[in-house]
Amino acid sequence: MKLNPLDDRVVVEPLSAEQTTAGGIVLPDSAKEKPQRGRVIAIGPGRLLESGDRCPVALAIGDEVLFAKYGGTDIEIEKKEVKILRESDILAKVV
Amino acid sequence: MKLNPLDDRVVVEPLSAEQTTAGGIVLPDSAKEKPQRGRVIAIGPGRLLESGDRCPVALAIGDEVLFAKYGGTDIEIEKKEVKILRESDILAKVV
Amino acid sequence: MKLNPLDDRVVVEPLSAEQTTAGGIVLPDSAKEKPQRGRVIAIGPGRLLESGDRCPVALAIGDEVLFAKYGGTDIEIEKKEVKILRESDILAKVV
Amino acid sequence: MKLNPLDDRVVVEPLSAEQTTAGGIVLPDSAKEKPQRGRVIAIGPGRLLESGDRCPVALAIGDEVLFAKYGGTDIEIEKKEVKILRESDILAKVV
Amino acid sequence: MKLNPLDDRVVVEPLSAEQTTAGGIVLPDSAKEKPQRGRVIAIGPGRLLESGDRCPVALAIGDEVLFAKYGGTDIEIEKKEVKILRESDILAKVV
Amino acid sequence: MKLNPLDDRVVVEPLSAEQTTAGGIVLPDSAKEKPQRGRVIAIGPGRLLESGDRCPVALAIGDEVLFAKYGGTDIEIEKKEVKILRESDILAKVV
Amino acid sequence: MKLNPLDDRVVVEPLSAEQTTAGGIVLPDSAKEKPQRGRVIAIGPGRLLESGDRCPVALAIGDEVLFAKYGGTDIEIEKKEVKILRESDILAKVV
Repeated sequence: MKLNPLDDRVVVEPLSAEQTTAGGIVLPDSAKEKPQRGRVIAIGPGRLLESGDRCPVALAIGDEVLFAKYGGTDIEIEKKEVKILRESDILAKVV
Repeated sequence: MKLNPLDDRVVVEPLSAEQTTAGGIVLPDSAKEKPQRGRVIAIGPGRLLESGDRCPVALAIGDEVLFAKYGGTDIEIEKKEVKILRESDILAKVV
Repeated sequence: MKLNPLDDRVVVEPLSAEQTTAGGIVLPDSAKEKPQRGRVIAIGPGRLLESGDRCPVALAIGDEVLFAKYGGTDIEIEKKEVKILRESDILAKVV
Repeated sequence: MKLNPLDDRVVVEPLSAEQTTAGGIVLPDSAKEKPQRGRVIAIGPGRLLESGDRCPVALAIGDEVLFAKYGGTDIEIEKKEVKILRESDILAKVV
Repeated sequence: MKLNPLDDRVVVEPLSAEQTTAGGIVLPDSAKEKPQRGRVIAIGPGRLLESGDRCPVALAIGDEVLFAKYGGTDIEIEKKEVKILRESDILAKVV
Repeated sequence: MKLNPLDDRVVVEPLSAEQTTAGGIVLPDSAKEKPQRGRVIAIGPGRLLESGDRCPVALAIGDEVLFAKYGGTDIEIEKKEVKILRESDILAKVV
Repeated sequence: MKLNPLDDRVVVEPLSAEQTTAGGIVLPDSAKEKPQRGRVIAIGPGRLLESGDRCPVALAIGDEVLFAKYGGTDIEIEKKEVKILRESDILAKVV
């Protein structure tokens, strides 16, 4: 009943524009490639370094994030649309 | 009677849309480049690091995975269509 | 009420052309891809090195910077338009 | 009377579709870029690592392999057509 | 009243063709992408190495340099047009 | 009266199709980008590694080689046409 | 009165086709991208390695070299046309 993303991927549940964020962030409608907000629901082990170690993803479950709109892959899981993104597609954490 | 994939490749047997997954994941029909579900049936030794070591593929035989639809190579083995993919084409493990 | 940028990203509040800089810098109107001035309001942990360490961004909150006009992503936060840029899109600090 | 491939190259003698493989693998005719089967007849010293060492090719003379159809270079040696491929063009070993 | 370039960038004040150089270098008018001469007025900390160290820019304030005409970014600072270039856009020091 | 190639380059004297090779290799006329045979007459110090060492070219003066037809640079030296190639353009040694 | 090239660049004074080389090398007129001969008159400190060290250019002042015709940048210095090239554009030393 869960997705375990590989590598530095995260699963994000998009937040619709109507939802009010704690941080009061509103994304301009006019921006053509505006970023989207979402909440992190699953996190991969992190990017593989040449040493063979992995660098943990700098995010935690429940974090609210901004991500590039056209990055990642959309899938539907238990009637809920989610997005699988790489960490590099996440712009910032909203705190 | 078996394929031993090279490098970080895995062999995946696609699961048809009709099959019910434990996780109840359904992939939207409308998505043009939607990922596909499959079951891992063979695993390579992993990606070669500059140190000369290999980083084991983070999957096990029998794992159910989501993978990018247009990645990899299709082949038919004993009347069964399978796909040879690189680990980087696997988005997530379904658990 | 705040953005925490990931990786080597910074959040910059653009300074309009009318604002007078301490350094008295004026950007030529005729230049087609002229850089813009801005003030740094948030800074990420820095670029990930292969060692697993991060190289801190060479900037501090409040720094006035010049950045490439078409780099980064525009977002609106509490009615204020800001820009999320990578450190490599910042040309220079104005001192 | 022999080719010694350089770097991570291997020389492969293609197996025609009519030949029966031990593994009973049949490649679908409809696939446009279907992989081909072949037998390894010569192997290079392996890919050069930054350390100056070479990573041996993970194959042995006589191995049956699947390889991407349009990779490599075709040459004729003693009236027999063979293919010189890089290890990265080999998808899997048939066992 | 000063620019502190980031990374391996330098700020260069272009020298007009009429100015006589100590070295007596004249750039041919006919060359379409001829390099330009300039004087270094500010220098960044240098290119970041994977070790986390920086390699100092191999130039000093006041150096006369040749640089590729179409590299870098033009800005106006206190009515003077200057150029922000990366060290790799500097071809040679004139001595 | 001699060329000393730089880096991992080798100088190769092409062998015409009429010349009989010890190995009896014949290249098919129909192949559009068929490799060519040649004899190595000069060898550079080898590719530079990040450690600052060089990896010696895996060939010796006098070796007969197969190389990609359109790689390298043709020059005429003492009325003899030769080719300067990088080691990576050499496919195999004929033994 | 001198150019000090940066990085792995060298300054080369082209030798005209009429000049007789010690090595008796003649470049074919028909070749469209034929290499050119020249004499090295200045040498940079060499390519920067990730260790922070530089790998000295494998040439000395006075060396006669072959270089790719369309590489580098042409400049005029004291009425003499010279070329600034990277070491990687130098094919071979004529000895």
